[in-house]
Amino acid sequence: MKRSFIREILESITPETISFAGGLPDEHLFPHEALRTSANRILSDPSHLQYSTSSGILPLREQIAAIYSGQGFETHADNILITSGSQQALDLLSRHYRDRSITIESPSYLGAMGIFALNHLHTDAITLEHDGITINPFAQSLERTQLTYLIPDYQNPTGRTYSLEKRKVIAAQVQKHNAILIEDGPYSDLFFESRQPAISAMIPDRSYHLGSFSKTLAPALRIGWIRASEALLRPLLIHKEAMDLHTNSLTQYILFDYLSHGDQYATHLKNLRKHYAKKRKAFSEALTKYLPSFVFEKPKGGMFIYGRLPGVDTAELVKMSLKKRVVFVPGNEFYGEGRGMDEIRFNFTHPNTEATIRGIKILANCL
Amino acid sequence: MKRSFIREILESITPETISFAGGLPDEHLFPHEALRTSANRILSDPSHLQYSTSSGILPLREQIAAIYSGQGFETHADNILITSGSQQALDLLSRHYRDRSITIESPSYLGAMGIFALNHLHTDAITLEHDGITINPFAQSLERTQLTYLIPDYQNPTGRTYSLEKRKVIAAQVQKHNAILIEDGPYSDLFFESRQPAISAMIPDRSYHLGSFSKTLAPALRIGWIRASEALLRPLLIHKEAMDLHTNSLTQYILFDYLSHGDQYATHLKNLRKHYAKKRKAFSEALTKYLPSFVFEKPKGGMFIYGRLPGVDTAELVKMSLKKRVVFVPGNEFYGEGRGMDEIRFNFTHPNTEATIRGIKILANCL
Repeated sequence: MKRSFIREILESITPETISFAGGLPDEHLFPHEALRTSANRILSDPSHLQYSTSSGILPLREQIAAIYSGQGFETHADNILITSGSQQALDLLSRHYRDRSITIESPSYLGAMGIFALNHLHTDAITLEHDGITINPFAQSLERTQLTYLIPDYQNPTGRTYSLEKRKVIAAQVQKHNAILIEDGPYSDLFFESRQPAISAMIPDRSYHLGSFSKTLAPALRIGWIRASEALLRPLLIHKEAMDLHTNSLTQYILFDYLSHGDQYATHLKNLRKHYAKKRKAFSEALTKYLPSFVFEKPKGGMFIYGRLPGVDTAELVKMSLKKRVVFVPGNEFYGEGRGMDEIRFNFTHPNTEATIRGIKILANCL
Repeated sequence: MKRSFIREILESITPETISFAGGLPDEHLFPHEALRTSANRILSDPSHLQYSTSSGILPLREQIAAIYSGQGFETHADNILITSGSQQALDLLSRHYRDRSITIESPSYLGAMGIFALNHLHTDAITLEHDGITINPFAQSLERTQLTYLIPDYQNPTGRTYSLEKRKVIAAQVQKHNAILIEDGPYSDLFFESRQPAISAMIPDRSYHLGSFSKTLAPALRIGWIRASEALLRPLLIHKEAMDLHTNSLTQYILFDYLSHGDQYATHLKNLRKHYAKKRKAFSEALTKYLPSFVFEKPKGGMFIYGRLPGVDTAELVKMSLKKRVVFVPGNEFYGEGRGMDEIRFNFTHPNTEATIRGIKILANCL
């Protein structure tokens, strides 16, 4: 298995590189002072440094459950399993479903495809349309696989969002075929207009809903979770415990402390959405102005702008632009062989506006 | 696969339980104030909250490499891969060697046997003698498996330590059979007399040396590592990246900061060894006085006292004592079927002396 292109690029980035590649949040928005205050409180008690339980610390699971319930998706602490980022949630699930087939979107999240391959899951990739996966081939595939992995909100890489109608059809199909849905929602809180309803809420006994604080608070915390019925979570706990005993509990306590002090998390999220909406606007405008041949839709949330440079081999373009210290991820990476050759995923949350304009101008020059 | 006995016991423990079961450090010795100072420094810079590299942050890898080199085992940062505790190191390695056979000690570490089983490694268990694994059957097994997992220092569960002679013979056998050694050293720094030489240092190109800060600093940090040649580490990095992108980097930075400020870690270790040596003494004396039928050797380091209650079914004993809120791990757990039925592992680092005496008296009453 080859190392992922994205991770290799991330590691070759210098402070001078303008990166549109990784799914990096804007570090100027990390609430580091509030987390510092929480760390101070938590580290005044040495018992927070001891071994902990495999499912995650109870007060944090309660907090996460309360967030779901507050959105109308009734959830208890026992429905939450804390993981080391949602990447580990994908690993856990794909170990549990090892050797099975799984219906995924085309294109899809690189990290998911990587861990599925490592755990010998056979992916059946169905074209993702503007309003969600293509229903007929999806239903046919699901009948066979009985397992699907979808990213309905501000999808990675495309930034697309499922329509309410498609969400309902998908829930019905999962039910009909006695199937299981893995719904990945790392960007769900980063909406610029309104929150979308989770498909999982329509089929709570047939779904895992994956969440993460990496995009909304800070990636270094490595705290994600799986929301599922207790029956679905139970076998995962055996894997989790064997994999690393439990997720970093110092960070879990810091996060719990942060979430439980006033409304600072809600305020932070509001600010984050506003800021990222502005960045999306600036990025879109720069693309229209300096790279007019790029065809794209504006995402309604998340971190990515996806589109096409008709007739351009974007894998070649990135090799050229890397020499001029501008990077992005060519679309082909998110498909199997031979597709998306003229497509590009841009991350708009990390670079500042000045760097965005400079980077896009460099890309235009490379063309 | 059943959930591990130890984890189930850990989760059933109440504040009133006297636990000799888990491998828990004494939380009174956690340097929480120093870690708080480090957390304060690290969280003043938001860039410490961003995504990081899969191998672990460079300054921490440099610190760990320097510790090895300072002990005469020459090591560079590129020889270190940071993991989420050494349990994850075992997962990484057993994924890499999936479906292979592996020569292990009998008895051995429960968490290793669990993850080996989960990753379909077939274990060949060779009797552990007082000075290390039994050489002849070990050599025969190794010829077939070409892979071995050993815990030479203050072994879990037995507390035994390999003689220098056996270490040399094992290194020679690994070399002879073109085999690979996985040497687990979570207790190696907890010596009461003198540091033992790592077998890995004798065969640096044929070994993984596993370390952890869970026993020496604090388990909640979930920071372990693998020390190996770059050639051996490279394929593991692909797994690590797919498993969780990278280990909690906030904690990595805090740890780096802690390790790089003066000699506080060296001072802490000295204090820890002194304190645990005292606890071993108190525990041994209580056993001799209140449970005289318990036959055991005094360990020269680590966290466990292991021995036998001749003729007693210790799995039955723990069921009885659990009702009186005293727990330990019955020896049979560390073997396959039908062995170690009258054996017990006691953890002596966590309970205080008063609780130790009270707990041992309760066990004596149960008999």
